[in-house]
Amino acid sequence: MNKLLDNIGSPDDLKKLNTDELTALSAEIREFLIDSVSKTGGHLASNLGVVELTVALHTVFNVPEDKIIFDVGHQSYVHKILTGRKDKFDTLREFGGISGFPKRSESESDAFNTGHSSTSVSAALGLARARDLSGGDFNVIAVFGDGALTGGMMYEAMNDAGHSRTPLILILNDNAMSISRNVGAVSTHLRKLRMSPAYFHSKVVVESILNKIPLVGKGIATVIKKVKRFFRRLVIPTTMFDDMGFTYMGPVDGHDIKAMIQCFEYVKDEKKPVFIHVQTKKGKGYAPAESDPQRFHGISPFDKETGETREGSETYSARFGSVMIKLAERNKKIVAITGAMPDGTGLEEFGKRFKNRFFDVGIAEQHGVTFAAGLAAGGYTPVIPLYSSFLQRAYDQTLHDVCLQKLHVVLPIDRAGIVGRDGETHQGIYDISYLTHMPNMTLLSPATLDQLEEMLDFAVNKFDAPIAIRYPRGSVQADNVPSGFTLGKAQLLCEGTDVTVIAAGRMVKRAQEAAALAGKSVEILAMPTIKPLDKDAVIASASKTGRVITIEDNVKTGGMGSIIATVLEENRVDCAFKICALPDENVPHGTVDELDALYGLDAISIVSKIQELCNG
Amino acid sequence: MNKLLDNIGSPDDLKKLNTDELTALSAEIREFLIDSVSKTGGHLASNLGVVELTVALHTVFNVPEDKIIFDVGHQSYVHKILTGRKDKFDTLREFGGISGFPKRSESESDAFNTGHSSTSVSAALGLARARDLSGGDFNVIAVFGDGALTGGMMYEAMNDAGHSRTPLILILNDNAMSISRNVGAVSTHLRKLRMSPAYFHSKVVVESILNKIPLVGKGIATVIKKVKRFFRRLVIPTTMFDDMGFTYMGPVDGHDIKAMIQCFEYVKDEKKPVFIHVQTKKGKGYAPAESDPQRFHGISPFDKETGETREGSETYSARFGSVMIKLAERNKKIVAITGAMPDGTGLEEFGKRFKNRFFDVGIAEQHGVTFAAGLAAGGYTPVIPLYSSFLQRAYDQTLHDVCLQKLHVVLPIDRAGIVGRDGETHQGIYDISYLTHMPNMTLLSPATLDQLEEMLDFAVNKFDAPIAIRYPRGSVQADNVPSGFTLGKAQLLCEGTDVTVIAAGRMVKRAQEAAALAGKSVEILAMPTIKPLDKDAVIASASKTGRVITIEDNVKTGGMGSIIATVLEENRVDCAFKICALPDENVPHGTVDELDALYGLDAISIVSKIQELCNG
Repeated sequence: MNKLLDNIGSPDDLKKLNTDELTALSAEIREFLIDSVSKTGGHLASNLGVVELTVALHTVFNVPEDKIIFDVGHQSYVHKILTGRKDKFDTLREFGGISGFPKRSESESDAFNTGHSSTSVSAALGLARARDLSGGDFNVIAVFGDGALTGGMMYEAMNDAGHSRTPLILILNDNAMSISRNVGAVSTHLRKLRMSPAYFHSKVVVESILNKIPLVGKGIATVIKKVKRFFRRLVIPTTMFDDMGFTYMGPVDGHDIKAMIQCFEYVKDEKKPVFIHVQTKKGKGYAPAESDPQRFHGISPFDKETGETREGSETYSARFGSVMIKLAERNKKIVAITGAMPDGTGLEEFGKRFKNRFFDVGIAEQHGVTFAAGLAAGGYTPVIPLYSSFLQRAYDQTLHDVCLQKLHVVLPIDRAGIVGRDGETHQGIYDISYLTHMPNMTLLSPATLDQLEEMLDFAVNKFDAPIAIRYPRGSVQADNVPSGFTLGKAQLLCEGTDVTVIAAGRMVKRAQEAAALAGKSVEILAMPTIKPLDKDAVIASASKTGRVITIEDNVKTGGMGSIIATVLEENRVDCAFKICALPDENVPHGTVDELDALYGLDAISIVSKIQELCNG
Repeated sequence: MNKLLDNIGSPDDLKKLNTDELTALSAEIREFLIDSVSKTGGHLASNLGVVELTVALHTVFNVPEDKIIFDVGHQSYVHKILTGRKDKFDTLREFGGISGFPKRSESESDAFNTGHSSTSVSAALGLARARDLSGGDFNVIAVFGDGALTGGMMYEAMNDAGHSRTPLILILNDNAMSISRNVGAVSTHLRKLRMSPAYFHSKVVVESILNKIPLVGKGIATVIKKVKRFFRRLVIPTTMFDDMGFTYMGPVDGHDIKAMIQCFEYVKDEKKPVFIHVQTKKGKGYAPAESDPQRFHGISPFDKETGETREGSETYSARFGSVMIKLAERNKKIVAITGAMPDGTGLEEFGKRFKNRFFDVGIAEQHGVTFAAGLAAGGYTPVIPLYSSFLQRAYDQTLHDVCLQKLHVVLPIDRAGIVGRDGETHQGIYDISYLTHMPNMTLLSPATLDQLEEMLDFAVNKFDAPIAIRYPRGSVQADNVPSGFTLGKAQLLCEGTDVTVIAAGRMVKRAQEAAALAGKSVEILAMPTIKPLDKDAVIASASKTGRVITIEDNVKTGGMGSIIATVLEENRVDCAFKICALPDENVPHGTVDELDALYGLDAISIVSKIQELCNG
């Protein structure tokens, strides 16, 4: 079936193929991707878009000697297929299987781990300067989307690289999309560039003519140089990338292997900072993904023929989105901000209903949070849902601009806790630690969808300071949680005498499961408010049972358990004590259930902790 | 003496003066600034640079109705003088006195609090969109330096603002300096623009001519529009700011009040995103500051005639700088990175001695840290000293790019703990909390300069993973700390039987002071390694004395005390326990001693805690 692909053991094998064969190979890769991802789930649309680009890269450059860094990294599947990992694709994103992102531990062909957006040029510059210091002679290439270009780190890195003239090849994979349709002024700039299709070729031609004009005599040389510069400027309008010290090339058709190979061959010995603008189509070659690239960005297993996935239960993200509409209808001061994730966060419908009150800032969490602070200072109530691991990018802005000024910004934190298959870079397991130490911050954690609804209403309408609400990926809910959210109050879900189990968010359900199995009299204390913590409830229950177990899907250090430990220790409550939380190490990919079990957060593990404490 | 200045009660009074009077007023303000800051210390050079700019702004715009946001904010002294705070300048940066940065709580003329770099455009965009949503009609102005332009947040914000066409006035105060000389490709772009001095005027002239050509008929209109656009482009080359959707104006002489007033009057009703490039001279009008603006950026009280300050003791920053040179001479793999702070961090001399191994990335901590990760992946040992409060900006990069990949990046954290007069935005009191929960991170904290030297040698030469070393502003050292740093081991500085005092870094000295005064048998445990913590030493000492006090200049939540509480609680060590740390609230400006006393971190407070615990 895959005549060509089956014979590709390493990128070297590509170099024996002609352009027609490479094109045919690309079709086979595309077929393989659709088939494989339809079974495992994963990032499909972005990988379909970069098939030819990746094939062309590996045809011209020599990995692992040359270094290719894939920004974000979810578009590295083709790279993985071509660098000896094709046979492992049935384990993609599975526990113990290959990662959906580049991993240095997985292959020497992966030059740098990625996961969050806009890091590739900084990392590439580090590798390039290390090369130059040690006298190496290879190419360093960063491949990034136009979405990543909306992240400020890219500019910081280009500002540095363009200035130093460090040889470096940047490749913009321009598909006019972040995860959703791309936004921003730079995106408009790119659109203009896209409409000058002869740009790369004319540039090459003009340059080669100009370089043939000899420079003789000193005075004349200066004049000719000026004339050249003037002529260049007339024929080739500069782009903002030229202004930043890069030689701009493009746009090149990212599905035309021949054109790309020609372009890469041209730049590979240039020894200067080069910016190549490649145009691709997200989802290319698979009709359902071409027509709805956003849905096929990251997708669960689907029917290859129809593109359909199974409908799941209502998620926290979906509930968030529907509640926001209800709240915004009643309260005209509510505005919403997204960092390129209207769909993932559930805000898509809000964006359509309240066009003027909805702002997509791009993959720019830093700006997004401070922009929210500005809106709050201007009298509005901004709600900016971000994934837990992406809010990390705005740690300083949350602390410095929102918290220190005590501004009423509402931060719904989606994908809090273990996220599963995306793995270590996407686990939302630090937010309790990084938010609770910020002054003036309040942190909530619902155990049910209805509680999320209550909390949002509270945060938006009945509060006037920074407030975050963390909720998990998916739809896990605790049982029989009474309504009537009260800030700072624990909820005694069931009384017991042997041991107190204190849990928050998704873990409340785990506490209930464990209590049902433990054969002990378990008291369950749910913590809808993590900060400020209900110290009285903790002390009262701990004093009563004499045994406390805390459960959270956050790292142990700085987490809820450590806050509770401090309360107990300072109040000299004599009790046996155990924190169930994630350890001080990388948490890899796998299903949520697998990872819970691995780290002692499943019901069985908690039961054994309960028994240990009770019998110890 | 200050004939004009004494009559300025509010910005309204400026509007009665003619240009000559405004120029004379500027001279008086400059005189007042030099005189005042020579007594109190503070940020001098940047304020001397913006005297005329601030006068012109307040002459044209109406604060507080119009909003002016000063990026970073250390250049807001003239603004404070003109908005009713002149008489409080003898309390500048003193405890209870006026802040050295804009504060909404201080005056309604301060539209948004600033402190960290590159936040102003995001905040301004928030205020501007809030205005537009509520139908307001006023101007929002962000004033920022070319240093701030190296921070990625600026681009994220400009990308958003330029795209949305939200009316907004950006003013670039271009003095070719960050705190040190500015770096980067954008800075080169600005240099080119600076060399086209007639730019603003020609633009205004061309625009007004073009606008007089009438648009008649439909087909003809299109042709004329195209001709106009072509003509514009020929006469006025576009800048990268135009590419991002802003109308670029400038450069304007920032010491020419008349030119600036003309320019501001021209743009104030434009109702579109405008970017005004103003050129100023840092330190303008005071010879010592003009010739050494870096030293006069932030300065202690000085002799007005000579510009001399008093020599202090050797600081941790200075020792860091000198040790780096010694280490780099022996180990050729060491490279150093700074975020626009070669002087502040002590790396100035290193930069001169090891030109190829020194990288100033601009005010771009995010890029700096990931760039360091790239260098480490390329086989080098990068050392990137950052102030504690500025490393906050690179929280995600430290976690995502350095820690998850377990790369050997050395992070010296300067200005850790209370920094004093810079106040709440600059206090380095969160780093223990935000670093200890990162996997694979090691955190050290020296109590003496010699210990810093030992730790740096260890971190660079004898370690191979992410490692941070936090040290304070200034030169406070503990007494009689034995040499021979051992990772993960506590140091028993003095044995005792009544109470254990556990301290780290600058607080070790405080523990010693308190022990000398307490009249109890105090055991002092110093923690040169905060992570991994020496649990055995903690448990042993706590079990022995039965009373534990922890001291740290970090917030309580997630700090060293909370880690120790967890150890004691999990190991069921029965002891009285007290954490001395900073509370969950904003820590304002004042001297370090004043703030220590306020928050119970001075010797007297610790003595009373010891006695409480011993007698309780």
